Amino acid sequence: MSKVYFKNDYSELAAPEVLAYMAKISNGHYNGYGLDEICESAADRIKKELKYDNCDVHFMGGGTQTNLVMLDQILRSYEAVAAVSTGHINVHESGSIERTGHKIEALPSHNGKMCAADLEDLLRHRTDEHMVKIGAAYISQSTETGTVYSKKELQELKRVCSDNGIYLFIDGARLGVALMCDGSDLKMSDMPYLCDAFYIGATKNGGMLGEALVIVNDDLKPHFRNAMKQHGALLAKGFVVGAQFDALFTDGLYYRLAEHSNTMALNLKKKMQEKGIELTIDSPTNQQFIRLPNEKVKELENNFAFEIWEDGPEYTVIRLVCSWATREEDIDKLLKAL
Amino acid sequence: MSKVYFKNDYSELAAPEVLAYMAKISNGHYNGYGLDEICESAADRIKKELKYDNCDVHFMGGGTQTNLVMLDQILRSYEAVAAVSTGHINVHESGSIERTGHKIEALPSHNGKMCAADLEDLLRHRTDEHMVKIGAAYISQSTETGTVYSKKELQELKRVCSDNGIYLFIDGARLGVALMCDGSDLKMSDMPYLCDAFYIGATKNGGMLGEALVIVNDDLKPHFRNAMKQHGALLAKGFVVGAQFDALFTDGLYYRLAEHSNTMALNLKKKMQEKGIELTIDSPTNQQFIRLPNEKVKELENNFAFEIWEDGPEYTVIRLVCSWATREEDIDKLLKAL
Amino acid sequence: MSKVYFKNDYSELAAPEVLAYMAKISNGHYNGYGLDEICESAADRIKKELKYDNCDVHFMGGGTQTNLVMLDQILRSYEAVAAVSTGHINVHESGSIERTGHKIEALPSHNGKMCAADLEDLLRHRTDEHMVKIGAAYISQSTETGTVYSKKELQELKRVCSDNGIYLFIDGARLGVALMCDGSDLKMSDMPYLCDAFYIGATKNGGMLGEALVIVNDDLKPHFRNAMKQHGALLAKGFVVGAQFDALFTDGLYYRLAEHSNTMALNLKKKMQEKGIELTIDSPTNQQFIRLPNEKVKELENNFAFEIWEDGPEYTVIRLVCSWATREEDIDKLLKAL
Amino acid sequence: MSKVYFKNDYSELAAPEVLAYMAKISNGHYNGYGLDEICESAADRIKKELKYDNCDVHFMGGGTQTNLVMLDQILRSYEAVAAVSTGHINVHESGSIERTGHKIEALPSHNGKMCAADLEDLLRHRTDEHMVKIGAAYISQSTETGTVYSKKELQELKRVCSDNGIYLFIDGARLGVALMCDGSDLKMSDMPYLCDAFYIGATKNGGMLGEALVIVNDDLKPHFRNAMKQHGALLAKGFVVGAQFDALFTDGLYYRLAEHSNTMALNLKKKMQEKGIELTIDSPTNQQFIRLPNEKVKELENNFAFEIWEDGPEYTVIRLVCSWATREEDIDKLLKAL
Repeated sequence: MSKVYFKNDYSELAAPEVLAYMAKISNGHYNGYGLDEICESAADRIKKELKYDNCDVHFMGGGTQTNLVMLDQILRSYEAVAAVSTGHINVHESGSIERTGHKIEALPSHNGKMCAADLEDLLRHRTDEHMVKIGAAYISQSTETGTVYSKKELQELKRVCSDNGIYLFIDGARLGVALMCDGSDLKMSDMPYLCDAFYIGATKNGGMLGEALVIVNDDLKPHFRNAMKQHGALLAKGFVVGAQFDALFTDGLYYRLAEHSNTMALNLKKKMQEKGIELTIDSPTNQQFIRLPNEKVKELENNFAFEIWEDGPEYTVIRLVCSWATREEDIDKLLKAL
Repeated sequence: MSKVYFKNDYSELAAPEVLAYMAKISNGHYNGYGLDEICESAADRIKKELKYDNCDVHFMGGGTQTNLVMLDQILRSYEAVAAVSTGHINVHESGSIERTGHKIEALPSHNGKMCAADLEDLLRHRTDEHMVKIGAAYISQSTETGTVYSKKELQELKRVCSDNGIYLFIDGARLGVALMCDGSDLKMSDMPYLCDAFYIGATKNGGMLGEALVIVNDDLKPHFRNAMKQHGALLAKGFVVGAQFDALFTDGLYYRLAEHSNTMALNLKKKMQEKGIELTIDSPTNQQFIRLPNEKVKELENNFAFEIWEDGPEYTVIRLVCSWATREEDIDKLLKAL
Repeated sequence: MSKVYFKNDYSELAAPEVLAYMAKISNGHYNGYGLDEICESAADRIKKELKYDNCDVHFMGGGTQTNLVMLDQILRSYEAVAAVSTGHINVHESGSIERTGHKIEALPSHNGKMCAADLEDLLRHRTDEHMVKIGAAYISQSTETGTVYSKKELQELKRVCSDNGIYLFIDGARLGVALMCDGSDLKMSDMPYLCDAFYIGATKNGGMLGEALVIVNDDLKPHFRNAMKQHGALLAKGFVVGAQFDALFTDGLYYRLAEHSNTMALNLKKKMQEKGIELTIDSPTNQQFIRLPNEKVKELENNFAFEIWEDGPEYTVIRLVCSWATREEDIDKLLKAL
Repeated sequence: MSKVYFKNDYSELAAPEVLAYMAKISNGHYNGYGLDEICESAADRIKKELKYDNCDVHFMGGGTQTNLVMLDQILRSYEAVAAVSTGHINVHESGSIERTGHKIEALPSHNGKMCAADLEDLLRHRTDEHMVKIGAAYISQSTETGTVYSKKELQELKRVCSDNGIYLFIDGARLGVALMCDGSDLKMSDMPYLCDAFYIGATKNGGMLGEALVIVNDDLKPHFRNAMKQHGALLAKGFVVGAQFDALFTDGLYYRLAEHSNTMALNLKKKMQEKGIELTIDSPTNQQFIRLPNEKVKELENNFAFEIWEDGPEYTVIRLVCSWATREEDIDKLLKAL
């Protein structure tokens, strides 16, 4: 019997609607490198969702790639990017930003989030050429620990960036669950007003692979396809990624899948709280973090797949992730085992 | 009516057998980042084809990416790579190798191929630190113009590399058609003995996307997954690429698709020669290049999709590419139009 | 009247003995790029001081340059370097290490020093390819805040590095004052046994400019001149830098200049302590840090040159640096003004 | 007896007037990193020579360094620089430009010079993102083979650059001899109108070390000191380099030294021509290239120092360089030996 999966939100090939769409396009011939009608259609759908036309949409293969190509485009050769210490680019991308030549200045993480005052303080203290110049701020929505920025928090960060002449880039690998979470005051159509560039992740929200990068600020648009090609990010069959988004933004599939992930996770969260299980982070989205005795974790590993987040001598923090593919019966099984 | 496609070998989603395989795996859960059973199975199949077990197989998203990650792994920070002037990395990858910090030293192209004597001569003249040190040679099999290295030519290049302590890397984006072409004396199982690393392309041979990189030389193996991650080349759903190869190396599908591409192209070539059409390169594989009067090219563009290779005041060289999806009736239509 | 200088240890052209040596060589002709008899003689003198012959000595123009060329040589493209948060490469080199492609992993600073246990802990937690691989540790002797590693502390760090297969590189821009400070148990000839590479600074110890890099570990020696050239660090008139060291290591000048700097600083320190002035760091070398009321700092600025280290609403920390050129009367003037 | 030097123009410490100036400043205290009164005075003198005030002057340690820092500032991450195949950055800087991430596109060398039509043609063919975007052109004045661009040739190149929205950067490591050569129609004050940035070399024209970079185009000025620091090019004792230029641009010393180099070289050239010695390049400046039988070269090597430029089975091309330090008697000795 195979394990019940709470390991991550990218364990399955793709949502059935996406696969159906791909079957449909399997007899066509398409232009290479994203210059095809599927990518065009997908970009149009995204612009409609954004209610914003003056932006460029590029389809990339994965999140780390999107982060590094976009930040390399944003930053001048002598510039650095500010991120929280727990930011994905700072800890889980193997030094990819630095490999493109740019320092990451780590700010304190407040439940995974960057605080506008911290950013302002950093920028105020950068006055000479011995300390690296900051050219952008990077944040994730939702964050690496499942938390979510409110609209006001994003506006504050954007204001600090604008006031200081730097750019704000939002990693939206898990943007869907952020938009659809309980109590969210953020809509997809707010995004272009809250940053200079951001992306909408498909890999972690029911697509087979890919991220749709949206460049809002005109400064950042020229020659972006050169930058993609140069970093090996311009797929010959760009239409494969375009297809994910054309499917996901048909009939609101993207939002439905995110909502399902959240619903499953919040149901699990609520019931774990009722059972008195310690949640280490108060996350409103599809990632939940709990602390368990080590022997309990060992026992769970027999029948469930999940990530170890922090290990200790007696207790272990594990991460439980729900996805579009998580079923109520999976939750039930896990709750029973807990 | 849509155009008949001779534009390239990556215009279609994937061969039916590959799509069938993907449908089959669509209900499973898999580990992330290529650490799953599909990638394991695919790597095993490749090693069996190679009759060579002591190699590492990594699944990457595309050719430019594979070239840049592998060459960056091969070369020390102060080293350059030798390639022919027409090499893909030298002209059609937008400066990607240089972006990782390495110069490309261009050697003369002999019908798209590197000559061992030229390489030897280059290495002999690199004696001081003012000229960049050469650390590797890069070649493509088949080449960018459809030509093919014989086994003896590869052995010669390998010998020059070994004698000079540099590595040989073979871009196999179109390896299939090279192995399967008329008169080829090269087998898949020869490859590990002819270079230090090479890759087997799926994107241009019936797969949805991806290249299988095979690292033969032990020097180049350590920490390659770090290098992949750092360059944004470690896909979260690595199993999507693994699946392509697991399908392609079942029942010889990979070879059959390559053979079909060649058969179609050589049939076309023979009949064009009979018609007296000028072939600018004598290619035994699925890429053919012909010179036509400009008005003829204009006319063809109405019903056929192809690439302009070189334009001139009166004549234009166009590239015609056959793929696994090319049908005899496509060839007939084109011949009639010519 | 010009100000009394406590700003840094690189405010003057060079010590008189160094200038005399340069006058002496002003009529000769020398080979370019450090391949001349002056550099050879200087390297020999350094090897004699080290009582260690199996090392390579290279003459570089400045500290940031030496750090970046050496670390780029040490690290593979996917590797990072560990340094304390206050390390020069982490805060005062404008992202130079990252510009060569390498992340800096910041460890806690214990009075400017790296603790072996912290390094060991970092290395123990680097187990997968999502987190960047550590390839080296970087420390400064003396540190950026004037403190000094004991021989035992260096041995501990070296052991952790060796046990984990990483390299230890010591920034010796201010090595002289570290070796000559009160209570130091470290000799120049200990250096080759305590690290894989280090440098001896002339810029901050009486030379006109330059650092002598000593590469001890054989792994790091090949093609280093290529790396220098590639980073613009191979001076056409390499003999200008060689001359500094040939002069400094004649009759112990290097040590005498360092000793003078320390003597002046410790005299100043002792008298400031007697006056009840708060020292923020207990430094045994030529850099001293004191906290003063803001109005006092304003007043001092009229007649003295020094650096502001940390500013606050009421108090300011200033740095006072003594050099080979500091005179007793300078100290007296400052003490009177304090 | 030591050899007579025709090896290069950087074999001596510095011209006597420069050394006298340095002696004069040896008792002062100066601010670090080029923010001192000597650098300020030197920059003012240069601006006066240029009759151009709206430019930034930066003092760097050497030519390769200046080339790489300036080009890295000019180019966006995805851009390349055009240079002739014989350009210093293309062959003799060990891949330094590529190390900063930028491809060099090599154009044909016409006696060491770039032809505007070649550049125009290259730019016309760069239409898609698969080929790297050109962001700048790099030329040397005088060139690597001693030849000189006329004012008209420079105007043509500048026009092509401006028309295509790219920058023109001139390597002036040997600018002095270009300005002062027989038949030159170019004045120092023309330079700001002929390019976006250029530098004036001291290393090869009587200074101890250093190049004065002049940035004319406002686009390229911001944060250049960050770029310098990041590449290890911001010397702690910037005043050492500033001093060279303050001395060289006092009473026209810079021009006198260049003129002397040319006079010596042209005298030598004329007499070699009279003797029927084959000159391989018609150079009007201080570098001369002659072809001699191999046995003659062997014989000369006993008493003269020079560079081998090209070797062959019977004949060898050697380079003879005159400098500010070359004496008539040196020329006489060489002519006698020839």
